[in-house]
Amino acid sequence: MGKKLGVAIVGSTGYGGVELVRLLASHPLAEVTSVISSSSAGTPITEGYPHLTGIREELLDDVDAEAIKRKADVVFLGTPAGVASKLAPQYLEAGLKVIDLSGDFRLKSPGLYEQWYKKTAADESYLEQAVFGLSELYAEKVRGASFVSNPGCYPTATTLGLAPAVREGWIDPATIIIDAKSGVSGAGRGASLGTHYSELNENFKAYKINQHQHIPEIEMILSDMAGAPVVTTFTTHLVPMTRGIMSTMYATIKGDRKASDFIDLYRSFYEGRPFVRIRPEGQVPATKEVWGSNYCDIGFAVDERTGRVTIVSVIDNLVKGAAGQAIQNLNLMMDWDETLGLQFVPVYP
Amino acid sequence: MGKKLGVAIVGSTGYGGVELVRLLASHPLAEVTSVISSSSAGTPITEGYPHLTGIREELLDDVDAEAIKRKADVVFLGTPAGVASKLAPQYLEAGLKVIDLSGDFRLKSPGLYEQWYKKTAADESYLEQAVFGLSELYAEKVRGASFVSNPGCYPTATTLGLAPAVREGWIDPATIIIDAKSGVSGAGRGASLGTHYSELNENFKAYKINQHQHIPEIEMILSDMAGAPVVTTFTTHLVPMTRGIMSTMYATIKGDRKASDFIDLYRSFYEGRPFVRIRPEGQVPATKEVWGSNYCDIGFAVDERTGRVTIVSVIDNLVKGAAGQAIQNLNLMMDWDETLGLQFVPVYP
Amino acid sequence: MGKKLGVAIVGSTGYGGVELVRLLASHPLAEVTSVISSSSAGTPITEGYPHLTGIREELLDDVDAEAIKRKADVVFLGTPAGVASKLAPQYLEAGLKVIDLSGDFRLKSPGLYEQWYKKTAADESYLEQAVFGLSELYAEKVRGASFVSNPGCYPTATTLGLAPAVREGWIDPATIIIDAKSGVSGAGRGASLGTHYSELNENFKAYKINQHQHIPEIEMILSDMAGAPVVTTFTTHLVPMTRGIMSTMYATIKGDRKASDFIDLYRSFYEGRPFVRIRPEGQVPATKEVWGSNYCDIGFAVDERTGRVTIVSVIDNLVKGAAGQAIQNLNLMMDWDETLGLQFVPVYP
Amino acid sequence: MGKKLGVAIVGSTGYGGVELVRLLASHPLAEVTSVISSSSAGTPITEGYPHLTGIREELLDDVDAEAIKRKADVVFLGTPAGVASKLAPQYLEAGLKVIDLSGDFRLKSPGLYEQWYKKTAADESYLEQAVFGLSELYAEKVRGASFVSNPGCYPTATTLGLAPAVREGWIDPATIIIDAKSGVSGAGRGASLGTHYSELNENFKAYKINQHQHIPEIEMILSDMAGAPVVTTFTTHLVPMTRGIMSTMYATIKGDRKASDFIDLYRSFYEGRPFVRIRPEGQVPATKEVWGSNYCDIGFAVDERTGRVTIVSVIDNLVKGAAGQAIQNLNLMMDWDETLGLQFVPVYP
Repeated sequence: MGKKLGVAIVGSTGYGGVELVRLLASHPLAEVTSVISSSSAGTPITEGYPHLTGIREELLDDVDAEAIKRKADVVFLGTPAGVASKLAPQYLEAGLKVIDLSGDFRLKSPGLYEQWYKKTAADESYLEQAVFGLSELYAEKVRGASFVSNPGCYPTATTLGLAPAVREGWIDPATIIIDAKSGVSGAGRGASLGTHYSELNENFKAYKINQHQHIPEIEMILSDMAGAPVVTTFTTHLVPMTRGIMSTMYATIKGDRKASDFIDLYRSFYEGRPFVRIRPEGQVPATKEVWGSNYCDIGFAVDERTGRVTIVSVIDNLVKGAAGQAIQNLNLMMDWDETLGLQFVPVYP
Repeated sequence: MGKKLGVAIVGSTGYGGVELVRLLASHPLAEVTSVISSSSAGTPITEGYPHLTGIREELLDDVDAEAIKRKADVVFLGTPAGVASKLAPQYLEAGLKVIDLSGDFRLKSPGLYEQWYKKTAADESYLEQAVFGLSELYAEKVRGASFVSNPGCYPTATTLGLAPAVREGWIDPATIIIDAKSGVSGAGRGASLGTHYSELNENFKAYKINQHQHIPEIEMILSDMAGAPVVTTFTTHLVPMTRGIMSTMYATIKGDRKASDFIDLYRSFYEGRPFVRIRPEGQVPATKEVWGSNYCDIGFAVDERTGRVTIVSVIDNLVKGAAGQAIQNLNLMMDWDETLGLQFVPVYP
Repeated sequence: MGKKLGVAIVGSTGYGGVELVRLLASHPLAEVTSVISSSSAGTPITEGYPHLTGIREELLDDVDAEAIKRKADVVFLGTPAGVASKLAPQYLEAGLKVIDLSGDFRLKSPGLYEQWYKKTAADESYLEQAVFGLSELYAEKVRGASFVSNPGCYPTATTLGLAPAVREGWIDPATIIIDAKSGVSGAGRGASLGTHYSELNENFKAYKINQHQHIPEIEMILSDMAGAPVVTTFTTHLVPMTRGIMSTMYATIKGDRKASDFIDLYRSFYEGRPFVRIRPEGQVPATKEVWGSNYCDIGFAVDERTGRVTIVSVIDNLVKGAAGQAIQNLNLMMDWDETLGLQFVPVYP
Repeated sequence: MGKKLGVAIVGSTGYGGVELVRLLASHPLAEVTSVISSSSAGTPITEGYPHLTGIREELLDDVDAEAIKRKADVVFLGTPAGVASKLAPQYLEAGLKVIDLSGDFRLKSPGLYEQWYKKTAADESYLEQAVFGLSELYAEKVRGASFVSNPGCYPTATTLGLAPAVREGWIDPATIIIDAKSGVSGAGRGASLGTHYSELNENFKAYKINQHQHIPEIEMILSDMAGAPVVTTFTTHLVPMTRGIMSTMYATIKGDRKASDFIDLYRSFYEGRPFVRIRPEGQVPATKEVWGSNYCDIGFAVDERTGRVTIVSVIDNLVKGAAGQAIQNLNLMMDWDETLGLQFVPVYP
């Protein structure tokens, strides 16, 4: 077997970064050659993550582009919003391929970014250059790209659950309501009252109603599917669990469609896409059923009394919602089999 | 101080029953004189509930009406669906006041009951006799009644959150979508795969989509508020926690209303009702903020982009959603202060 | 009914402080007249604790002794280690009674305090003045006292579980091993990686082995019971739950004692002490069985094969381990019935 | 690459069985060719385990030895106690290799089995034949064996943590006290009050004190290490989490040993054993740090004040405590690299 592709992870002390380390450990064609953290450079990664004892014992590297270039060909950016916008251009200039897991390059309009993220947007030329990597919808664009912007966790679960019905015009986009729920790891490793155990355990809360920065991203994708602007109602909730996202979605059906029709449509739409699993009639997925894996599972209920469809879509926010999809994009960029390093069976129970 | 009112609890080994025991322990005018369980009669209640050691050490009584009558004036029924329909008539005949916590007397139409509960309905004359005890909406009917049907947990959180807006015509009832979430104690103490720790922990699941037996109860109340039939979309989810319900509700606003308008309307509607707390602008309640208490907390978000209001309503399913509201109804039936024995501060954290 | 005793709570934004607010709300002879926080003075307490909406809406007061004196006769100190040592003297000088929930006045030796707490000890004259308030063991000293140092959560569960056997010489003190477990609320409300939800959920960890600052306090009490110095092995663990402490304790039995002998001894020792419940043979308590209440439950297992007794003792760390025992001490100081305001049935489930 | 070794799993609907399915999916030399359940034969495995949708869609096979023989060369038995004692002989007679995950063949004395398991023991000739497969301690015996009895979860964590110190005589075996804690999945998938979510969540409980059936297994191994009979005090607790075991162990040190001495001893003892990780001084492992992996992590604290060592040992009960170690034993039996199919990085967070 030849030499593996060298991969660097910037932001290795965040949950997205450390999940990349876990997943890439079993990748047959790529290997992590540098784990990087600006805040903890020079310390061992096991200091913050003792679960890596004996697996990765090296010191964390610094973010310098030239140094990275000597070790790696591809960089994953698992940094907070506002950081990748500065780092990605340097890495691209240095000839590295870049996959950014943050929100910095997802929205094509700087104004929209600044409105929702309250930060300065990236340079417009880079915004244009970044391919939006929702793998199942935009695989053709990702294939061969050098710079991919990895989607958000909520937009992934949500738009995979809505795309076929919206594109086919089976539901009225104006009636879509998205009630989303997430485990706490989505908030990252930063300590705050909002991630404090005693505040979240045995508690369920809504947050950022109509104000979540993933809203314009969801609308960007749905508008693309609909071929016309879509505006949605989107609510996020925090579930007392670590991993998992569920989007429960409601829309008025156009025409006379049964659950079995939706199942047929979605199975056809996602044919050949190994990570989307459509559930049989009468069954909707639970978050634990994709836990630790790269799957997005989708199920349907149609209510004849109201003429609405309820769509339930689940992912593991750290895998398909972050690190897993990033590797899926790497596979597409390298023109490898999409599933390399990602064939994990969900961990149950 | 004179003799307290004697109260019997049938179904004392269920979560609703044992919560009645907890709450009534501090009631100034009523006291539990008989704890009853058909399945465990003759054994000490502490066998199944060691937390009552030293507090209630007596043996569980049997369900016999005459025996109850010798000890109590009021009976709470915390039995499963299909049991109260048989017991309540006996107790009423024996001259006891009855508060039923099950679903057996909530729906006035036997056909509707049988369609949603898949069980034989109670005798129609008793269905008519039972006053529906959603305390805040029907206090006048409950006052002085002898037979009260206590509402379901989901209908309580949901309709308290919708009633003012529906009655005033501020939202279009046809657009209402209810996304509800509940802790696991709502499923009772029965052991099954559906209540198994390893299946629910670190998991979030939807269940009974459009099929929950609380749907006709919710529609009954909303139709009453609207003055016209209301049909709704209602989804239930299981949260990995023990107590708490949140209903996140969506509807299209009629006219031009801001969040502050809703807050004013609801504060006015619930004026003088001590257990409904309307949150200030920009704030919605979390389930833990009512944990262990009889409060129903409600908050609002209005989205100008979509013209929809999002209403968040939370309760403790075992208190305001069951035992607490039952005691509230007892207070109303006896023409006592509504808050007697219910002035618990939520347990936080 | 006459005027209630005015009570001030300093450190009202901590978990101990807010639990005092909850418990004192139902006290028949005392009432909270001032909630105080140096860090949040001037803001409403509901800002950090929305569960108090409609219950306590006032602004947080400052820590000034004279201002407190105008509103209250007793001060509870729920401040972090190192703060009470400075505040308590001021309050005592102002003529206030003081109950300190921190560790600042528990150890009588300044050197021992500084060794384990790594902070400057309180003035020695105040250390002498402070009565150590483990209510069941030192009630006679607490009665009528003006300054009480409330015990730590671990020492309370641990020494109540060991005191009778040690005092009677039924176990060899040199063989005592204490394996303690606590819910996360014991760590307070401060945000850190150590209280981060995703780090603690679905995790069980040991911490501060042989180094916990409660060790000298435990040894102080056990030495007092034994009438000779006792040195112990003490390990603390963090359980993924909010409230509850269990101490599982091991010791070699002196002589021939069965579990029933221990039960008899403990029942006799704690006769007339309403908050200690000794479990019957074959039963040991779980933490949830005292949740939200002031009980300490104790059970036994004797192993003939090894000649050891295993003692299991549980409390709610925020009630009997902090705020509840503080109120119990208030009752003793005021020569009231020990149970006033504390007759909560454990919340189950 | 040649044909993989065919493997059958009997008891595929239990947690041990389904974990074997998960882990073996990535094994390079073995593959599951038959998933078997006597109770659910003829139904799809996805019915009970929807997380296997699209991964394993076949119907569950029956337990018949001849039918298994046509598909597989090795059988894993993940059946409850008392079942393997009947099935294993049939499979061995049919020429299959057998790895039993139950307790039926661990104890060599039928009398001891019957005393602790309260069931009829297996035939003595098969008890003798079964090699006890605690991989790190008995690898030489497992290599090339046809019939392996896989250790229990508690004995694995416990004896790996004690073996080096006991064998070297560094601790006094008579002083060993084992305080063990387990996640709920150890109790299997059977529904009962003991596995009910609302009873276990936010709860911590001790159970089977001195009576757990793993006690004689632990003593068998420790006696073997000590070269003399060892009797221990062993307590088990249930932690509100799904996976993970921690054994916190106490013993009196013989001679003058520091934590660093223990670390050196253990590193030397486990040299070349890839799944035991010894933590550096001042660090003990948490259960989540081995979650989903086959590691056993061990850390130490030595207390000069008491002359005792505290040893903390953690595993994932379903991996190293069951399915993972079974595969490790398969690898040894086949004389393959011990780590095949087991190189999972722990899932964190």
